Amino acid sequence: MKMGMEITMNAVKRTIKWEDNKVVMVDQRKLPERLEMLTCISHYEVIDAIKSMAIRGAPAIGVAAAYGMALAANNIKVKSKAEFCSKLAVVKDELAHSRPTAVNLFWALDEIWKVITSSKSSVDELKERILSKANSLAEQDIKTNLSIGENGVRLFEDGDIILTHCNAGSLATVFYGTAIGVIRSVFQKKRNIKVFVDETRPVLQGARLTAWELKYDKIPFTLICDSVAGFLMYQKKITKIVVGADRIVTNGDTVNKIGTYSLSVLAKVHNIPFYVAAPTSTIDFNLKKGEDIPIEERSPEEVTTIMDKRIAPCHIAVHNPAFDITPNYNITAIITENGILEPPYEKTLKSFLTK
Amino acid sequence: MKMGMEITMNAVKRTIKWEDNKVVMVDQRKLPERLEMLTCISHYEVIDAIKSMAIRGAPAIGVAAAYGMALAANNIKVKSKAEFCSKLAVVKDELAHSRPTAVNLFWALDEIWKVITSSKSSVDELKERILSKANSLAEQDIKTNLSIGENGVRLFEDGDIILTHCNAGSLATVFYGTAIGVIRSVFQKKRNIKVFVDETRPVLQGARLTAWELKYDKIPFTLICDSVAGFLMYQKKITKIVVGADRIVTNGDTVNKIGTYSLSVLAKVHNIPFYVAAPTSTIDFNLKKGEDIPIEERSPEEVTTIMDKRIAPCHIAVHNPAFDITPNYNITAIITENGILEPPYEKTLKSFLTK
Repeated sequence: MKMGMEITMNAVKRTIKWEDNKVVMVDQRKLPERLEMLTCISHYEVIDAIKSMAIRGAPAIGVAAAYGMALAANNIKVKSKAEFCSKLAVVKDELAHSRPTAVNLFWALDEIWKVITSSKSSVDELKERILSKANSLAEQDIKTNLSIGENGVRLFEDGDIILTHCNAGSLATVFYGTAIGVIRSVFQKKRNIKVFVDETRPVLQGARLTAWELKYDKIPFTLICDSVAGFLMYQKKITKIVVGADRIVTNGDTVNKIGTYSLSVLAKVHNIPFYVAAPTSTIDFNLKKGEDIPIEERSPEEVTTIMDKRIAPCHIAVHNPAFDITPNYNITAIITENGILEPPYEKTLKSFLTK
Repeated sequence: MKMGMEITMNAVKRTIKWEDNKVVMVDQRKLPERLEMLTCISHYEVIDAIKSMAIRGAPAIGVAAAYGMALAANNIKVKSKAEFCSKLAVVKDELAHSRPTAVNLFWALDEIWKVITSSKSSVDELKERILSKANSLAEQDIKTNLSIGENGVRLFEDGDIILTHCNAGSLATVFYGTAIGVIRSVFQKKRNIKVFVDETRPVLQGARLTAWELKYDKIPFTLICDSVAGFLMYQKKITKIVVGADRIVTNGDTVNKIGTYSLSVLAKVHNIPFYVAAPTSTIDFNLKKGEDIPIEERSPEEVTTIMDKRIAPCHIAVHNPAFDITPNYNITAIITENGILEPPYEKTLKSFLTK
């Protein structure tokens, strides 16, 4: 895994891309201090990048997994198609175990797998088709986000003060973002908006990534600690909330970054619309309710140390869930590339399934 | 302001004390990495210590201000009583401007001022009486906290899982603490309890101070990021909440560390009792409602840097209120040294006033 040299934002058109038979991605652990690219030459390096959150965000890790398959396919040196497929099945399984919660990861692996199982091509042709599919998933992600943004605009109005949590921006996707994509589209149409950005402990995706993206786009924003949001709602200083999603299930229950649940409750109490922006690839029709979704428990060190400095005593118990579940009844609407869904989600989501 | 050498917890019987005509306090900025004492030889150094949060917590800064008056009194070299009092009046005003929100600061200064204005003593006798009053406020604080703890016990039961926010422990007082004092007393009587500790961004008093105190007392606890608490309530993993207070006004509205308001709303939605533990010196009968209390806005750097490392882009807007207001209707009971108050607080608090 080689580190590239420092480059400016203008040079980065994509959070992740295929270049010279390698996967090149923004190393999000280094932001906002510096914009550095990380180059992966094997799917093991992609797995490391996902696990260590060099790349994160449900749509982005889906595309990373697809490119991981393409890398592995390229690296497999067998001629027999059966052997090739059996090796790739192992790779798929390895990639699927990189993180447990975001469903886009499994969805992207399945999309790649469909290419493999439905194709009569030779091994060499198959390698090309896998890469081509991975590239198309990446391009599709951008189009999807632009549509999500476009669809979301009508829910907002001039003067809105929008709270967002974590980073559901360009960096969480290939480009443009979901929740931040909506904010971008709203800002283009109705320029008089402001944003509050939750810093989003413990990994600080809000402070490090969302603040960095909004600053670059010149969208007016104010950074706050996560615990400030509720009191801002009490003070009527927030008019809308929009967040991304890591998995939405059949009844509309939504798993997203830890802290989302609390925001949804506070929004309801203060009569503030609470929107989820996500591609349909985030919807998991295999699960019925939020409680069925596995919630990743991450390392205690994410909480007890910041930038390698200890901020808590040694040898203590830490509970560090990466996500929580927002029940469908707290979600005002779900903004997708195919349109805006409203409750009852059991019904409106099902209409997607039958499309 | 000299730094003492590193010492063990056993040597510290008090967060703040008078020693050899100096004020010696635990430097809370250094915890949990090391326990270091800070020695102040003038009231200016006490003001710096309060402003920089070397000492913090409403009752502790009250006592610090009282000792600041004693230091200044000792350092004034005039013989004329009128001149002495006029110089001390300036000191009182300077100390009163060290932090705006916690009322204990003004209360302690007023207690010292009463000694000055009600006394016919000479300047030298007055110096002794001021110090004696400061010492007695410090001792009184410990007794008060022990009574708060004792009074709080009956609100808790075996098996309780108690959430606390910020640090309302020994370090926020002279010794024992208010909210943590209650937890200490409950733990002594009903040993089968557990505690969740909010890390409490941005200054991390939960992660740095409360975790350190509970670890030392062997009270079982788990550290969480602030945004985890709400989802734990949803999962029925929290049975009680107890926090301290920086100011309680006539109608029971309570100002406490930022994030307290959100916890009180989440507690109400999840039917979890929400208790405030505070000495009666925290009650401000001059103000009618929470909105009248000035909320301190602290430096953006508290949010954008941790241990001198930047965690957000440069030159961005930050909103960093140190406190928020919890409305009386979200507070199940207020635990004081004189007993437990229940709603309607307009009435029950007034009974204190007429005592």
